[in-house]
Amino acid sequence: MASITSDPAISLDGFIAGPDQSLQHPLGVGGEALHRWHFEQPEENAAELDAICSAGAYVMGRNMYGPDRGEWDLDWQGWWGDDPPYHGPVFVLGHRSRESVPMQGGTTFHFVTGGIEEALRLAREAAGDRHVSICGGASTINQYLAAGYIDELRLHVAPVVLGRGEALFRDLPGLEFEVASSRSTSLVTHVTLCRTTG
Amino acid sequence: MASITSDPAISLDGFIAGPDQSLQHPLGVGGEALHRWHFEQPEENAAELDAICSAGAYVMGRNMYGPDRGEWDLDWQGWWGDDPPYHGPVFVLGHRSRESVPMQGGTTFHFVTGGIEEALRLAREAAGDRHVSICGGASTINQYLAAGYIDELRLHVAPVVLGRGEALFRDLPGLEFEVASSRSTSLVTHVTLCRTTG
Repeated sequence: MASITSDPAISLDGFIAGPDQSLQHPLGVGGEALHRWHFEQPEENAAELDAICSAGAYVMGRNMYGPDRGEWDLDWQGWWGDDPPYHGPVFVLGHRSRESVPMQGGTTFHFVTGGIEEALRLAREAAGDRHVSICGGASTINQYLAAGYIDELRLHVAPVVLGRGEALFRDLPGLEFEVASSRSTSLVTHVTLCRTTG
Repeated sequence: MASITSDPAISLDGFIAGPDQSLQHPLGVGGEALHRWHFEQPEENAAELDAICSAGAYVMGRNMYGPDRGEWDLDWQGWWGDDPPYHGPVFVLGHRSRESVPMQGGTTFHFVTGGIEEALRLAREAAGDRHVSICGGASTINQYLAAGYIDELRLHVAPVVLGRGEALFRDLPGLEFEVASSRSTSLVTHVTLCRTTG
C-alpha cells in the first residue's frame, strides 16, 4: 500500500502559516518567510522541492485550496495558476460537493465530502504504487497525524519565528517520531521524521 | 570578545521543558523526553554533548538552578550533585543576593541580582577568550535572544510533541537566523543557528 507523506514548511515556533490567511495573504501574514528557501535557493534545495511534488496523489484541506468559505466560489481554481505543480489528482476536503476541476499538466482537483478517511482511500486508489502526500494546511495534517496515517513527515524548518499562525502539532501531546535524516542550507533545515513502530 | 552560545533541547512544538516544573519534575512533566539522546545515545552525540559544557562561563535563570522560590534555600546546591558538569563559573540570575557556592570539579555558582546585562558582563570577564553559554531556562534564553546577545543558538530538536510547557521564542516574532549546520541521530536533530548579520 502506498505510504503517506507530508512536507510542511514550518517556523522555529511550530507554525506552518502566518495568521489571518486571506486572498491577499495566502500563507498568512508573514508566512512567506517560511518559503524563502523555495524561491531564493531552488537549486540548493532541488531534491526536496522535487520530492514534494513526486506523489501519485494529494490531499489538501479546503482552506489550502482557496480563500472562500461557505458556498464554493466555482470560478476559483486554486492558487497555482493554469498548471499547478501537482500533475496528478488532488483530493480537496470540504463539506459541499462540486464537480472536479481539471487543470493543465495533469492536475485535477476532486472534492470530497466524506472526511479524511474517504479522501485518503480515494487518493490511495489513485496513487497506485506511488505515495500519497498530505499537502496541508495545519488542520488537515494534524487530523492525519492524530489518526496515525502519516508514515513520513518531512519538516522544512525555516530559521524564523512567526509568533502566531497555524500551528502544526496542535492537540497532539505525546506524539513521537524517529529522525531518519536531516540536511540544511542557510535558509532551511530539512528533517525527515518517521513514525515510531513502538 | 567571547561569543555567546545557547544549547536548548527543544520539542517539535517549541518547548524546552514540560509544564509544572518542580523538585519531582525538574524538566517539567514529560520533559525528560527532550533528553533521551543524552542518555540513550551518548556516544553518537558526543561532539554536541562535549560542546554544551565547553564554555568558559555560564549564565542560568534561578528556576533552572533550583525548585525553591522566594527566599533562597541555602541548603540547595543545584540539581547536578557534588560535581556539576560545568567545571567553571556559573552566574545564576535572581532577585536576592547570597554567597557563592563552590562545588567539586571547578564549578562555582555565583548569584547575580543586577539582571541579564550584569550577569553577561561578569560571565564574559570570567570566560576570558572562551565563549559564554546561556544555559536556560526558556525565560532566560528568551531575554538574551530579545536583547540580541546570542550569536549561536544550537537547537537540539527531539522528535516529540509536548503540547505544553516552557516555550522558547515566546514573544519574539520576526526573529531570524541563518542555518549554519545540521546533523541528526534517530533521537535528535542538532541545528546550529547563527544571528543574521543583516
